[in-house]
Amino acid sequence: MKFSQMFIPTTKETPNDATLPSHQFLVRAGFILQTGAGIYDYMPLGKIVLDKIRAVVKEEMDKSGANEVQFGFVTPLSFWEESGRATAMGPELLKFKDRKGMGFVLSPTNEEAVVNMIKNRITSYKDLPINLYQIYTKFRDEARPRFGLMRGREFLMKDSYSFHATKEDLVREFHVMEETYKNVYTRLGLDFRVVSADSGAIGGSGSKEFMVLANSGEDTLVICPNCEYGANIEAATRKPVKKEPLETKELQKIETPNCKTIAEVSEFLKADPFYSMKAVMKKAVYEELSEVVLFFVRGTDELEETKACNAAGALELEDASEEEVRAANLVPGYCGIINLPENIKVFVDEELKEENNLVCGANEENFHYAGVDLTSMQNLNFADLVAVQEGDICSCCGGKLEYKKGIEAGHIFQLGTKYSEAMDAKFLDSNGKSQPFEMGCYGIGVSRLVAAVIEQNHDEKGCIWTKETAPFIVDVIVSNAKKDEELEAGMKIYEALKNAGVDTIIDDRKQQRFGFKMGDFELIGFPYAVVVGKKLKEGSVEVVDRKTLEKVEISIDEVVNYLIEKIK
Amino acid sequence: MKFSQMFIPTTKETPNDATLPSHQFLVRAGFILQTGAGIYDYMPLGKIVLDKIRAVVKEEMDKSGANEVQFGFVTPLSFWEESGRATAMGPELLKFKDRKGMGFVLSPTNEEAVVNMIKNRITSYKDLPINLYQIYTKFRDEARPRFGLMRGREFLMKDSYSFHATKEDLVREFHVMEETYKNVYTRLGLDFRVVSADSGAIGGSGSKEFMVLANSGEDTLVICPNCEYGANIEAATRKPVKKEPLETKELQKIETPNCKTIAEVSEFLKADPFYSMKAVMKKAVYEELSEVVLFFVRGTDELEETKACNAAGALELEDASEEEVRAANLVPGYCGIINLPENIKVFVDEELKEENNLVCGANEENFHYAGVDLTSMQNLNFADLVAVQEGDICSCCGGKLEYKKGIEAGHIFQLGTKYSEAMDAKFLDSNGKSQPFEMGCYGIGVSRLVAAVIEQNHDEKGCIWTKETAPFIVDVIVSNAKKDEELEAGMKIYEALKNAGVDTIIDDRKQQRFGFKMGDFELIGFPYAVVVGKKLKEGSVEVVDRKTLEKVEISIDEVVNYLIEKIK
Repeated sequence: MKFSQMFIPTTKETPNDATLPSHQFLVRAGFILQTGAGIYDYMPLGKIVLDKIRAVVKEEMDKSGANEVQFGFVTPLSFWEESGRATAMGPELLKFKDRKGMGFVLSPTNEEAVVNMIKNRITSYKDLPINLYQIYTKFRDEARPRFGLMRGREFLMKDSYSFHATKEDLVREFHVMEETYKNVYTRLGLDFRVVSADSGAIGGSGSKEFMVLANSGEDTLVICPNCEYGANIEAATRKPVKKEPLETKELQKIETPNCKTIAEVSEFLKADPFYSMKAVMKKAVYEELSEVVLFFVRGTDELEETKACNAAGALELEDASEEEVRAANLVPGYCGIINLPENIKVFVDEELKEENNLVCGANEENFHYAGVDLTSMQNLNFADLVAVQEGDICSCCGGKLEYKKGIEAGHIFQLGTKYSEAMDAKFLDSNGKSQPFEMGCYGIGVSRLVAAVIEQNHDEKGCIWTKETAPFIVDVIVSNAKKDEELEAGMKIYEALKNAGVDTIIDDRKQQRFGFKMGDFELIGFPYAVVVGKKLKEGSVEVVDRKTLEKVEISIDEVVNYLIEKIK
Repeated sequence: MKFSQMFIPTTKETPNDATLPSHQFLVRAGFILQTGAGIYDYMPLGKIVLDKIRAVVKEEMDKSGANEVQFGFVTPLSFWEESGRATAMGPELLKFKDRKGMGFVLSPTNEEAVVNMIKNRITSYKDLPINLYQIYTKFRDEARPRFGLMRGREFLMKDSYSFHATKEDLVREFHVMEETYKNVYTRLGLDFRVVSADSGAIGGSGSKEFMVLANSGEDTLVICPNCEYGANIEAATRKPVKKEPLETKELQKIETPNCKTIAEVSEFLKADPFYSMKAVMKKAVYEELSEVVLFFVRGTDELEETKACNAAGALELEDASEEEVRAANLVPGYCGIINLPENIKVFVDEELKEENNLVCGANEENFHYAGVDLTSMQNLNFADLVAVQEGDICSCCGGKLEYKKGIEAGHIFQLGTKYSEAMDAKFLDSNGKSQPFEMGCYGIGVSRLVAAVIEQNHDEKGCIWTKETAPFIVDVIVSNAKKDEELEAGMKIYEALKNAGVDTIIDDRKQQRFGFKMGDFELIGFPYAVVVGKKLKEGSVEVVDRKTLEKVEISIDEVVNYLIEKIK
């Protein structure tokens, strides 16, 4: 392709709201263009990158044996009412009525549509398993669309859905998908980790996320440097922290004037905060109502909100205001497990299960209890509520856990029968018995990957595309395209590279100077440039490596082979 | 691909509302699945066909030098308010509000989005021309979605938009696109005609349609069998019909009791209906109001509604009720050009321009005028209003025009400056003067082509795909897949064909009998089947040609080469 015949509007202007490098550079280098909150047009270079990533995803999915399909982007609201997600998805689900008043949604995901597709069309275990995938537009009406392609509202996703006669077969396909996903990210040249994950609103049991490592990632990952263990902090576990158990003591109420925090109480009582209970009050939002819910973790731990939300079975947790806390008859700063008002839901971290000598608030201003024995209390709800911290111990190998930041680029789920049961989709098993399908579902954020590649591969000058994702691998820069000899020499190199199957662009623009062209090369981030300029008289050109910005002088006769060798 | 590993749910059930063969067969053969009015899922075979057609369109567009982009499917309503189409598009434009109350539309076309993209990014004639295209989802909230993929609401369209410094350059690109489109339809194996067309709501001057010929086509084409002339009836012209002019006579009012039709009046007056004026009353719908408008054509002609609508500058024409006609002070059956009520809009067909001795209604019950002289009347609005009829004379070559039925599969327009002016998109010309861009726009109905191929290629048993569009070219039918020798022989042929680059599927299903597999072959419509069955003992197989249903016995050693030769 020739620069002069391609629409590549680079600019020096950074969008006001662009905080991430990928957002800034993709806009400035003419890949994308924002038209509304979280809605982007792809300009020619952006479309090429999107399609290259899409092609890798498609190839690997086809290799896995999955069948490609395409669901309507507009789907009937009735599907969502049947599954119960019309309300459960909340305002992210964009609903509208057509000219006849029928309800529809813009698909954010397609569990309902795929169940509708196979229902009554697959009726026997003999036709199982099957995995159906699509790479198609999605829409989520995010409350705060931001970070460019990273968290858009309209985006491109690969979503697939598998159907099985047994749980075992679902687990088999889950592993096939895990390998398929690893192949995708490896081919794209990304540094990534597979981590255990929370299943969130999709539901189901086992789930894994594929995280592209980047400092700007929105997700915190807990990684063991010694073994394979990795998990989203939302789902991370650790070896329980243990200390010598204290001697059991009598329960006693102690005046603790103005001691509202764990630190204050521990200091006042000269006690190890490890043996205290930290109370966290949250407003849990359910479909029909909201209420204040109480979580207890060890004084030295922090609450992990997603774990807490799952324990409470809520749609989401919000911070509870002091008014809401008081309305629930709780005493901020002095909240404890004893003498709680009735009807309040309480969840206790499971690492506290064996403790019998704890300090906690007395639910009374300026008082705490000591000697609290949880082992003697009935009907407590224990759950994993703890945010694993750096330095905690890996439960697999004993290594010291570390944090990394990651971008969620894929997520695979063992759904089970949640949707097949809700939508009454069944098959006859080998005994002639009607059974709901076991389902898996698997997503890759294709347009998000465009941004993720750049978050992981950029410098202060611009993008640095990997070989599989670059819109063109080589940019032949004709220093002064008004000089016939330079343009001709450039065209020869360009044609030779194209004939060798290397995606190449030639910067043949007559109205632009060399510096401008070099700036575009650095901003756009093609992996290599060949500069055809002053050295031409001596029979040589310069090859620039975008990643290192190193320049090498090469004879014009050797440059094509040199580049082919580099690209291999 | 193996049948046993692919989701191909064929069925004998025809959807109730499916009148067209393409609609019936695409559903029955498991290509598509309806989820809502005018909204379809593509099952695996349907997705392959859609992508094959998409790939041909993309290749030809890339060859033409156009740049691929992708606009947001969801576009801001503000774009449409700027161009004036927010109201002009009527209820086909699906509008909705997001969670924050901002107005958006589901894109039915993208003139506004593309002008937004190039505005201020292309600023000089030096960066022109450019042609930007996308192949992406569209939505039109049709009043009556029907005919399966033929007139859906969600559909796939290739739309492109070119920008030029001059009208001459726009015309040059218009011809490039015409050739590109011809290449597309030719490669797809379609019998098509390029015809002159009405520009409709898109606006602009010159426009051409690409019509796939099929009896079920919704469009009537006027074709000359002697020359290249072809036009949609909405835009068709003919050599004006002439007869010896009558002698001028004095205007006279004649009592014509109960003579309401042209036939009755002509019979009563013993006059040639050629010399009479036929009045057609319509309700013209404008953005702000509706009003009764009057059209006159020759007594022997019929009004062409699209031409009439364009002449009146209306959004659409509706039939006027007798009440509405009387409310406009018109007399049904006796409506004429003389003594009309004031303020009524009148349009006269231009073939009547020279007539000076006509019969028409007197705008009075039971009276007509004779001797009406249009040449003496002032301020008449003349326009081409006539529906060309079969047997009319071609204005290019004198041939006798014929009707054909066609499916609109593409449309190209010379838009001019309509959108660039409305959205204030300008560039500096070679004199440094600011000018609005000259624009062209070009559409191909990609998903509609899936149906059009079948409308043109089917029989009573099912689909007959062309080679470029078939999901697989060869179906290797293993007659009884429980017999190892048959399955092995089938697999060998299947592998050999695949290695030779022939898209092949093997029907290896163990639970299905031969007759069922043959039925699926005929219904789905792969171009060829190889039947591996009883003849295997004699070292031969049967090749079935789907189009002719002819069977040929071939030695198993020769069958691969035989097929490769056929497919070439």
